[in-house]
Amino acid sequence: MKVQLERVLPQEIEQRSMELIQQELDARGITLPPQLAPVVKRVIHTTADFDYARNLAFSPQAVELGLAALKAGATVVTDTQMAHAGVNKRALARLGGEALCFMSDPDVAAQAAQAGSTRAAASIEKAARVLGGRPAVFAIGNAPTALARLYELAEEGALQPALVIGVPVGFVNVVEAKELILQSRLPHIVARGRKGGSNVAAAIVNALLYRLG
Amino acid sequence: MKVQLERVLPQEIEQRSMELIQQELDARGITLPPQLAPVVKRVIHTTADFDYARNLAFSPQAVELGLAALKAGATVVTDTQMAHAGVNKRALARLGGEALCFMSDPDVAAQAAQAGSTRAAASIEKAARVLGGRPAVFAIGNAPTALARLYELAEEGALQPALVIGVPVGFVNVVEAKELILQSRLPHIVARGRKGGSNVAAAIVNALLYRLG
Repeated sequence: MKVQLERVLPQEIEQRSMELIQQELDARGITLPPQLAPVVKRVIHTTADFDYARNLAFSPQAVELGLAALKAGATVVTDTQMAHAGVNKRALARLGGEALCFMSDPDVAAQAAQAGSTRAAASIEKAARVLGGRPAVFAIGNAPTALARLYELAEEGALQPALVIGVPVGFVNVVEAKELILQSRLPHIVARGRKGGSNVAAAIVNALLYRLG
Repeated sequence: MKVQLERVLPQEIEQRSMELIQQELDARGITLPPQLAPVVKRVIHTTADFDYARNLAFSPQAVELGLAALKAGATVVTDTQMAHAGVNKRALARLGGEALCFMSDPDVAAQAAQAGSTRAAASIEKAARVLGGRPAVFAIGNAPTALARLYELAEEGALQPALVIGVPVGFVNVVEAKELILQSRLPHIVARGRKGGSNVAAAIVNALLYRLG
């Protein structure tokens, strides 16, 4: 069989994709606020799932606060190696930032085993120690326990989240953990319901980075 | 606000999630063939998107062929660092396999620039050179151009895919590239339509690995 793909130059693929996403949003009668649109559209670009046009919740000034933090060189902390891999670390480095994930660290595994908690929760505790009061953007795409621990540590003043990207995916405690963030004073972008993922978390970080590129 | 998550032991979260997924499949009247169910359910676990109960297409014996290849220590080739990060490399290593991704290699970027193609397509060409005829499992979660090049190289005999996991996501050439694989003689697991992703690609590899663990 002959390969019959549309001839699109590599650099045009993304622009074309975004146009198609905009067309489908228009067809569905969905109008996105201009400040939020790049984030929502990049998540749809990453998932081909238009549910995200409806389920992403933004606290007031969430995008502005995230942009300001990244512009100032904030660290991005993820809860999975997959989200870490998905973050555009070159774009982040141009702003003076770096992406960190502590999930695979042996001391995190040991601490989780000792405390009977998850590695994800322990990884956020390690982030608090490593950051030592510096503000950071947290991109949580997998573990509700990471999001809950983040909430607790922020309440205690042990963490200063400049923005919480709260998009864990799943069936156990996911909705509840997101609800904690939605009802908190923390600046946040949250995917309501069960959906989300490491890819969604990374896409939101990248959407902000590309606004600054 | 008090954190009120359900008390679930870390090791129980996944089992509980899978039970909830099964309940929702039952409620939707969806019965999965036993051999395919672990793959489909892990993809839903990764995305919370029940569309995958309907859109994953398996060629005859696809699961068996994938399992046999992984059991024999086959290499897993991904088209993104994110899928590479998501594959359980410890489980893979126990079987004697490794996961490779050539997307970030400087020679791949150079080759793509010279050929006016994508890095993704060039990364599959490099995979063919590196594998040198050894069979491999290809997990393509992002780039339709990777999938199309994979098809061409397999047709030419330059690649021996033991299984093609064809789940790129997106809006340009994605459906067409998947159609190539669906209509081919290559053993495949394909997500019909626009949906998919690096997370889905990794989840399918892991679902197979966990059958062997």
